[in-house]
Amino acid sequence: MHDEAAVHYIDMIDQTTLGHRMIKKQFNKTPRAGWQIDPFGHSAVQAYLLGAELGFDSVHFARIDYQDRAKRKADKGLEVIWRGSRTFGSSSQIFTNAFPVHYSPPDGFGFEVLDESIIPVQDDLSLFDYNVEERVNDFVAAAIAQANVTRTNHIMWTMGDDFNYQYAESWFRNMDKLIEHVNKDGRVHALYSTPSIYTDAKHASNESWPVKYDDYFPYADSTNAYWTGYFTSRPTFKRYVRAYSGYYLAARQIEFLVGRSSLGLFTSSLEDAMGIAQHHDAVSGTAKQHTTDDYSKRLALGASKVENGVNTALTCLTNSNRTCVSSVTKFEQCPLLNISYCPSTEKASSSTKSLVVVVYNPLGWERSDFIRIPVNDENLAVKNSVGTIVESQLVEVDNVTGNLRKFYVKAYLGITSDKAPKYWLVFQASVPPMGWNSYYISKPTGAAYNGTGYASAVVSPSNDTIEVGPGPLKMSFSAASGQLKRMFNSISGVDLPIQQSFLWYRSSEGDSMDSQASGAYIFRPDGNTPTTVSSSVPLKVIRGPLVDEVHQQFSSWVYQITRLYKNKEHAEVEYTIGPIPVDDDIGKEVITRMTANMVTNSTFYTDSNGRDFLKRVRNFREDWDLQVTQPVAGNYYPVNLGLYIADGNYELSVLVDRAVGASSIQDGQLEIMLHRRMLKDDARGVGEPLDEVVCVGKDCQGLTARGTYYVNVEKIGHGAHWRRTYGQQVYSPFLLAFTHEEETEWKSYSVPKASMMDANYSLPDNVAIVTLQNLDDGTTLLRLAHLFQAAEDPQYSVLTKVDLRKVFGKRTIKELTETNLSANQKKSDMKKLNWKVVGDTENGPAPIKGGPVDSQALVIELGPMEIRTFLLKF
Amino acid sequence: MHDEAAVHYIDMIDQTTLGHRMIKKQFNKTPRAGWQIDPFGHSAVQAYLLGAELGFDSVHFARIDYQDRAKRKADKGLEVIWRGSRTFGSSSQIFTNAFPVHYSPPDGFGFEVLDESIIPVQDDLSLFDYNVEERVNDFVAAAIAQANVTRTNHIMWTMGDDFNYQYAESWFRNMDKLIEHVNKDGRVHALYSTPSIYTDAKHASNESWPVKYDDYFPYADSTNAYWTGYFTSRPTFKRYVRAYSGYYLAARQIEFLVGRSSLGLFTSSLEDAMGIAQHHDAVSGTAKQHTTDDYSKRLALGASKVENGVNTALTCLTNSNRTCVSSVTKFEQCPLLNISYCPSTEKASSSTKSLVVVVYNPLGWERSDFIRIPVNDENLAVKNSVGTIVESQLVEVDNVTGNLRKFYVKAYLGITSDKAPKYWLVFQASVPPMGWNSYYISKPTGAAYNGTGYASAVVSPSNDTIEVGPGPLKMSFSAASGQLKRMFNSISGVDLPIQQSFLWYRSSEGDSMDSQASGAYIFRPDGNTPTTVSSSVPLKVIRGPLVDEVHQQFSSWVYQITRLYKNKEHAEVEYTIGPIPVDDDIGKEVITRMTANMVTNSTFYTDSNGRDFLKRVRNFREDWDLQVTQPVAGNYYPVNLGLYIADGNYELSVLVDRAVGASSIQDGQLEIMLHRRMLKDDARGVGEPLDEVVCVGKDCQGLTARGTYYVNVEKIGHGAHWRRTYGQQVYSPFLLAFTHEEETEWKSYSVPKASMMDANYSLPDNVAIVTLQNLDDGTTLLRLAHLFQAAEDPQYSVLTKVDLRKVFGKRTIKELTETNLSANQKKSDMKKLNWKVVGDTENGPAPIKGGPVDSQALVIELGPMEIRTFLLKF
Repeated sequence: MHDEAAVHYIDMIDQTTLGHRMIKKQFNKTPRAGWQIDPFGHSAVQAYLLGAELGFDSVHFARIDYQDRAKRKADKGLEVIWRGSRTFGSSSQIFTNAFPVHYSPPDGFGFEVLDESIIPVQDDLSLFDYNVEERVNDFVAAAIAQANVTRTNHIMWTMGDDFNYQYAESWFRNMDKLIEHVNKDGRVHALYSTPSIYTDAKHASNESWPVKYDDYFPYADSTNAYWTGYFTSRPTFKRYVRAYSGYYLAARQIEFLVGRSSLGLFTSSLEDAMGIAQHHDAVSGTAKQHTTDDYSKRLALGASKVENGVNTALTCLTNSNRTCVSSVTKFEQCPLLNISYCPSTEKASSSTKSLVVVVYNPLGWERSDFIRIPVNDENLAVKNSVGTIVESQLVEVDNVTGNLRKFYVKAYLGITSDKAPKYWLVFQASVPPMGWNSYYISKPTGAAYNGTGYASAVVSPSNDTIEVGPGPLKMSFSAASGQLKRMFNSISGVDLPIQQSFLWYRSSEGDSMDSQASGAYIFRPDGNTPTTVSSSVPLKVIRGPLVDEVHQQFSSWVYQITRLYKNKEHAEVEYTIGPIPVDDDIGKEVITRMTANMVTNSTFYTDSNGRDFLKRVRNFREDWDLQVTQPVAGNYYPVNLGLYIADGNYELSVLVDRAVGASSIQDGQLEIMLHRRMLKDDARGVGEPLDEVVCVGKDCQGLTARGTYYVNVEKIGHGAHWRRTYGQQVYSPFLLAFTHEEETEWKSYSVPKASMMDANYSLPDNVAIVTLQNLDDGTTLLRLAHLFQAAEDPQYSVLTKVDLRKVFGKRTIKELTETNLSANQKKSDMKKLNWKVVGDTENGPAPIKGGPVDSQALVIELGPMEIRTFLLKF
Repeated sequence: MHDEAAVHYIDMIDQTTLGHRMIKKQFNKTPRAGWQIDPFGHSAVQAYLLGAELGFDSVHFARIDYQDRAKRKADKGLEVIWRGSRTFGSSSQIFTNAFPVHYSPPDGFGFEVLDESIIPVQDDLSLFDYNVEERVNDFVAAAIAQANVTRTNHIMWTMGDDFNYQYAESWFRNMDKLIEHVNKDGRVHALYSTPSIYTDAKHASNESWPVKYDDYFPYADSTNAYWTGYFTSRPTFKRYVRAYSGYYLAARQIEFLVGRSSLGLFTSSLEDAMGIAQHHDAVSGTAKQHTTDDYSKRLALGASKVENGVNTALTCLTNSNRTCVSSVTKFEQCPLLNISYCPSTEKASSSTKSLVVVVYNPLGWERSDFIRIPVNDENLAVKNSVGTIVESQLVEVDNVTGNLRKFYVKAYLGITSDKAPKYWLVFQASVPPMGWNSYYISKPTGAAYNGTGYASAVVSPSNDTIEVGPGPLKMSFSAASGQLKRMFNSISGVDLPIQQSFLWYRSSEGDSMDSQASGAYIFRPDGNTPTTVSSSVPLKVIRGPLVDEVHQQFSSWVYQITRLYKNKEHAEVEYTIGPIPVDDDIGKEVITRMTANMVTNSTFYTDSNGRDFLKRVRNFREDWDLQVTQPVAGNYYPVNLGLYIADGNYELSVLVDRAVGASSIQDGQLEIMLHRRMLKDDARGVGEPLDEVVCVGKDCQGLTARGTYYVNVEKIGHGAHWRRTYGQQVYSPFLLAFTHEEETEWKSYSVPKASMMDANYSLPDNVAIVTLQNLDDGTTLLRLAHLFQAAEDPQYSVLTKVDLRKVFGKRTIKELTETNLSANQKKSDMKKLNWKVVGDTENGPAPIKGGPVDSQALVIELGPMEIRTFLLKF
């Protein structure tokens, strides 16, 4: 039961596929119902992608907004036909059952062992507390109460609860009796059922159901209890999960490339760990600290195995002799690159050996991205795989990073690290689709090399405004306040006044009216106006040929570096937040806020699980007349890919590197909550304040979160292409592996550059391979995803084609079977119930979908937002 | 697992027989081990009677005095050969296993579901918390630690605890793993075992064991925690159980007499309820109030069915036509006679009908006892079954009784009772052994009758000393102080200065050194000197031809009536205590104390479960060097039959009507705790203060306890006969049934007087029938008990004989099988293990035991203390 707010759709699909294939294998069953009873809000992607595209007929859950529920109970509208996709409309709809109270049984019908409030059914007439009539009457009354808010004469009772069935007998004994005596009574009929049986009964009733669009976010269970804090809770764990999500995708590709005969399935340990991490109290950030530590441990152990596998696989792949021995591994990787810890690169070169960087590109497109590795030598040359020197730049490692490195390397690895490296070595790598390229870093020997030319320069502001950016995208800052003033792009002609600042909401600890505190689940600010961290910021500008950097020290605990690369049309913003001070006994929820000069009519757009963008309107809900009680928390939405606002001229887009909560509280504004630290529990089950602390011995600090978001301004109508394609790059960064070799030796046997695909073939910009994975049954799982919604972009929101023979290059596909999304049944075997809806108003063009695949041509068509899943045999 | 302190041996036998016969019937098993792990101290009768005489080889328990345990651990003397009977010595010994810590598993080896401290055995190597070596090492260490205080290389772990095994799987899964891995390790060998397997292993080791005599009372688990409060806790519940014990014995006789073909087994409901009531948290008074209420309810419901059965049976038995119809019942009984509530007698006579009182005598002896029934008419004549007027006396019902009657009839029956009856009508009934006699009470019609002659006279004291007693036994009281001064007997020549007073110990609520409070289990007085209720007592003396009464109002909540009957050589003392005031926030534990002018050398004698008298020496234990920390509480012992002290001249004996705690804190003194009311819980599990309250609607009062004890003084060496024979009468009072009939009509068809036995036959004074019961398999269970210990009385401590043919009169015994005590195996099938003991010092004469029974002669021999059990077919 994965989370639905803080999860990426690829993780959701992977987790569900793992589960469904296990169920198929163990029980030969194909589930038909989604059981999402506990997640704290429900996503459009869950409905149409994880629901309908799996072959589910129904999805069931307890948690919807209390105002929404009240209205739906009155209208008998808790059960709906949900059309989560604006692109697909009714073709991906699903019967959706929101429970009338919660997922517990009706009051008095819980039978958990040791629960002293149990009222057992006593049906032995010799017992003093014989109570069959009373219990039957209670049962009938509870059934009728529920029937009164439910269409048709079928109702579902959820006979369980958190941590229940420790001793199942106590439940079944009582349920057996209830069913027996209630049916003897005859007023209602009771039976052991399943969601599928229930759904079939609903379907057979021929009832018409209300239609529901979009999603069920945000979730609130009372006036001041908006469950929008968990969109951001535990930001570093969320990043950890997201980083391994992309890594796991890349690793499976490499596992496929090296072939199952060589190394087996070395990625499966991460498959398990990642599946567990998607749980709605895992990546959501709502587990206790020790439970979260366990999730992290599983990820680390899983990833460590995968990392070894990848290192070996790359050793094999880059060896032209193709002799692949699982024990021979020459590569290393650096998971702590973000804090400048990478032993392989810190000693970049010796007198005889070069640092070899193998760069793997998991995208289906040729790609040029900047690589940053920590080095100590200021006199290094970077050469590409054919020996040509490529431009590089050295940027000094800042003190904030150096301090983070020292503390966290000790905390996480138990290692007292060397002094921080002096520089980041920056260069741009070009890598073919689903392939690799190699770069050699060494001390230059030829006189042709002028190392110093690539150093960065620290610039002192000479006038009011500092303009930065080595390429067409420029940003200007106030020299006086240190604040961002404007973004403009000399190619596109975009020119937008924009400020950016860090602020924090004071976490409520409850008040005399309502004891609700802000906590792991719930965001309840104490007052709706956040405090600005600093309005005057020391500024440091570093310029160079590849990248300009703006370092801003907002406070002792907020540091930001904005990077503009020479041929990128977005700004990369790296923030370092923490330890959030709480010595004033005030919890703080820290946001970055961009304020642009745009009239946005209360409207903004946030993605659903990294896939569809949904329109959000401030203080408004499509489904009911919203009573606004929390003007900030009640407008927060989960973001996994990004969010944007638009006016008549521009689209201002932000992409994120992990799950966050975000909103637009004023027109022209975008705000993202990046970190939060609180001193109270919010009484929803975690039982701890969300007060993350990291320790080295007894030296404990509040957790520092470092991350990156990406800001782009485009003319109206042109934002989607960047969001979709750069979004894939954010999700799937280069995979870097390092080794040291004598350059000539390396070249004597290595394959320094290769692609899985035919030369010159590349996927279209609107398609990504979201899964390529060898399965344990000898087949290979392939998923292709169209990246654009209908009408999102005139050029890309169209039917597109993928030529599989070219994708797989020299490999020959002997068999191709299209399946449902979780690959537990053939696509052609999927059956779907048809549902009648109340006043069906579907209009607009029919969705575009790809046609059947010709087994000879092997060309896959994909319509907008389509994901197609195949089992291949080579 | 019955209690061992507050239970009567007949109840213990009945409860065990019920259980053992059930086990035999359901599983065809004959238990060989006694599992008494939790009772709070262990009785001699449990050891030799309930242990050895059942055919048990062993008894196992956790609770022995902490000082005793410490010494025994050091000596490896926890396991002993227990010779609980001084009469029988080694012939009734049993292997006894006292656990070294408690009945829980060793620390860290409990596996109860939901217990967060569980350390499961994680033996899957892929688990993060794999811990097999650690758990095996812990296991071995715990085993060795226990082996170090245990003889032989076998130890027992008790793998469970209170309320555990709610989900047994969590235990067995872990124990399975422990056994597997520990045995693989090989340092110790673990197995699922049973107490019998364990005992056999101990026996096979050929070890010698220490000998233990007497009992394990009192039990203390720390310095100030003597579990001697529960000897008295819930005195009215204890009386309720005891009253039904005697009643149940009588009812089973009547059930036998009327024959199984007529009414079936109508006493079985009380068999169940009585069995449950013997539990060591039931009759012990240590259950929560609502649990105790449930025990009472079961007794009341069970007794109500038995009462109906007895009424019907008596209707049958007294009908000379012998037509027995189960629906015809003319009799009523009066369970609330003790508070003067008896609708049948309160309207004793009408113009045409007499009150007929059928008096059943469950003893094996002809018997003359005084009957007291409440009446409103002062002009009544009592006639015996042949029409002769018998002497009677009217005594006014006192106000204390009238008030009790009003409140408790409302509280317990829900009835607003009429005004209290004016008089007790007292007369002496003579009834043959195991038979009945009838008495007719009516307004006299003949002139021969002079009613007024039998009224009582209230006497005003005319000088310093008031002497009372219509017969040879006299008591004298001080007119000034109202206090008892002396008892003397004109026949025996006994003359003993004696005072009697009520006092109360202040219940400790814990102090700064030790938070231990006095509570349901534990008696911890705050200070060892009790407060005297009153040293100057208003006195009222009532005299008459049959009985003299002395009424003493000690305080508003302590009332006492001392009755001396014309031909009885003991005083009957009825106390009424309560509501114990606690508005001073002080818990109180109320005792009656007799102080006689005797030099008793710290010695006194208390019975074991109503059977053997054990010698007690103040501040002394036979088995270890007692550290005296509680000079009062640590000298309390359980009393069920009575206690006595002796000096060179006299024996002062007191018999009780229920379980109590008692002691002799000073030479010449006897004290009995009669009632207790506390405001703190003593933290041993009940979780409630023992603060008994009775309510009529919202009018709640502290519980009032009414009861009777009996005081006798004999010359030294002559006390046993009274204690043993009158003890049987206290236990087995007359059973009274009432009806109203026209005297002539009644006589026309009735059998007014009869005995089961042959005319003129009677059991010897030293034998009682303790069980006569029709079983559901068609047989009849008979138990005969010799009532005297070896050397207790020169005349009665001898081999005695019972002629069964005469006992059963017209009934013919077709088959007789002697069995063990619980009648689950033939006596001849009983096997007993022989045990070696350390330094066997048994000396003195061999025990006298009855020989085999000749099936023609059917004469049963019984040696002192012998109980013989037979299954009969008629």
